[in-house]
Amino acid sequence: MQVLPTYDDVAAAAQRIEGHAHRTPVLRSRTADQELGAQLFFKAENLQRMGAFKFRGAFNALSRFDAAQREAGVVAFSSGNHAQAIALSARLLDIPATIVMPQDAPAAKVAATRGYGGKVVLYDRYTEDREAIGRRLAEEGGLTLIPPYDHPDVIAGQGTAAKELFDEVGPLDALFVCLGGGGLLSGCALAARALSPDCKIYGVEPEAGNDGQQSFRSGAIVHIDTPKTIADGAQTQHLGNYTFDIIRRNVDDVLTVSDAQLVDEMRFFASRMKIVVEPTGCLGFAAARAMRAQLQGKRIGVIISGGNVDMARFCSLLA
Amino acid sequence: MQVLPTYDDVAAAAQRIEGHAHRTPVLRSRTADQELGAQLFFKAENLQRMGAFKFRGAFNALSRFDAAQREAGVVAFSSGNHAQAIALSARLLDIPATIVMPQDAPAAKVAATRGYGGKVVLYDRYTEDREAIGRRLAEEGGLTLIPPYDHPDVIAGQGTAAKELFDEVGPLDALFVCLGGGGLLSGCALAARALSPDCKIYGVEPEAGNDGQQSFRSGAIVHIDTPKTIADGAQTQHLGNYTFDIIRRNVDDVLTVSDAQLVDEMRFFASRMKIVVEPTGCLGFAAARAMRAQLQGKRIGVIISGGNVDMARFCSLLA
Repeated sequence: MQVLPTYDDVAAAAQRIEGHAHRTPVLRSRTADQELGAQLFFKAENLQRMGAFKFRGAFNALSRFDAAQREAGVVAFSSGNHAQAIALSARLLDIPATIVMPQDAPAAKVAATRGYGGKVVLYDRYTEDREAIGRRLAEEGGLTLIPPYDHPDVIAGQGTAAKELFDEVGPLDALFVCLGGGGLLSGCALAARALSPDCKIYGVEPEAGNDGQQSFRSGAIVHIDTPKTIADGAQTQHLGNYTFDIIRRNVDDVLTVSDAQLVDEMRFFASRMKIVVEPTGCLGFAAARAMRAQLQGKRIGVIISGGNVDMARFCSLLA
Repeated sequence: MQVLPTYDDVAAAAQRIEGHAHRTPVLRSRTADQELGAQLFFKAENLQRMGAFKFRGAFNALSRFDAAQREAGVVAFSSGNHAQAIALSARLLDIPATIVMPQDAPAAKVAATRGYGGKVVLYDRYTEDREAIGRRLAEEGGLTLIPPYDHPDVIAGQGTAAKELFDEVGPLDALFVCLGGGGLLSGCALAARALSPDCKIYGVEPEAGNDGQQSFRSGAIVHIDTPKTIADGAQTQHLGNYTFDIIRRNVDDVLTVSDAQLVDEMRFFASRMKIVVEPTGCLGFAAARAMRAQLQGKRIGVIISGGNVDMARFCSLLA
């Protein structure tokens, strides 16, 4: 049986990342408050280092390496924010990093990962298995593999986002968190249960990729094909063992929203709140708006996961 | 001889606006630090209420009204942020507001001003003089006219942006502030002189509208035609009497940047820092980047004035 992380792990992670991660601001919007008839507190992880919460979990996980692990290095497979979070954290902690990325990953992402000092191993996503490559690299070189979400130290690190939110604004009536593989949601749920026990906790997925909702409601991890959605950070095919266990014990429900709702919130964030939020980062607010009849007069937390969206894509979505 | 506001007025304004204006975050960017070889502290007034620093000065000015002024109301002429700042502040303080706007002002701006409860008086900008209309309304109805920048209470209110910056990060080596009519620059200069006496203070204008630079260097207020620039918040034709006096006594230099530089910084802010900044709000950072050879190792403050740019325009500028 696996040992699940607890709030104590989130609190310890908060100490480890202090001075390395940004303590991101909690943004308010009177317009949003009026439109929803509630008080909204937006935790702006799009203003985190590298533009997403992922730095929290990666830095926390690498901070816990022992001397042998530090010397041998870390390996991660990812085409997205996790790769850069590991590469940057490894550089800061002086740990060699190997990142397994698909050959057809955007050149900018490969360059950014190399820019952080990571060694990039490219693979053919149609003929090769990235997990097998990662495991082989780990075994041959004694590298430690850090997965993007299903790892206790990653989960505890992501939970520091909600810890900071509650530390700053106090207890809340509800918390909306985007849900892909569940690292952010499970970590934030641990923080919410400890710091605001009566707070309802909602995970939010894109309609097209509702494996988390199916899993939550059926009681077993459901696998789906890679979903078609603009929320590229939530295109995961299944929850992890750790994340699912924490989510089913602590989360009140898993909700879904459409891509059209995400675009509406991207526009709201940009035109009214003056922040760039990637589609995945809009999941929480879109769900809160849809539930507004039940939220009248409440204090609502929303975690904005990130802002890593190419400007050309951003503008084409808003057009 | 006019009595200039002092830092004490800025400190008093800070108390008046507390709980009404947002205390905006100071954002950091490791990428910006690396590119400039300095430590940059961005005061994000694009995240202020209504999306710009203007709320500070308007709310401070209206807070100082006596009973008779409150009852009779306020009048302002503006097609931009000042109009909305006055309308919103007036509503919060329960003061009637009349805003004189051109007939061809964007419908969205007229609607927003009315949405804040302001009475809008439209005029024909080709045949009528808005200042004359404003003065007539003021005289006939006993309304108090609050100009957009050349007013001691407006200046003191705008200075609270820099006060908050210094209170949060301590003394700086240089501060870059955008310059239109000079309300923001003169208020921030008062705060900087008091809180960080050795800090160099730079005003920054668009190249096409360098009346402030000409005035600063010649020692007398220079008037120009409405300049052609994308920095619509800095299209003023001349400094004010108060603002010029404060600027020439306290500011170290007035610099200019091109529209192309502003677009580069808009892109940087959006793609790297995940914030929407209007062209005028990019003036300070553009000048700091151009001066980077002289800023190595220094601690630099940059005031981002606002984020009120239509998304269609934003995207067309970045395309």
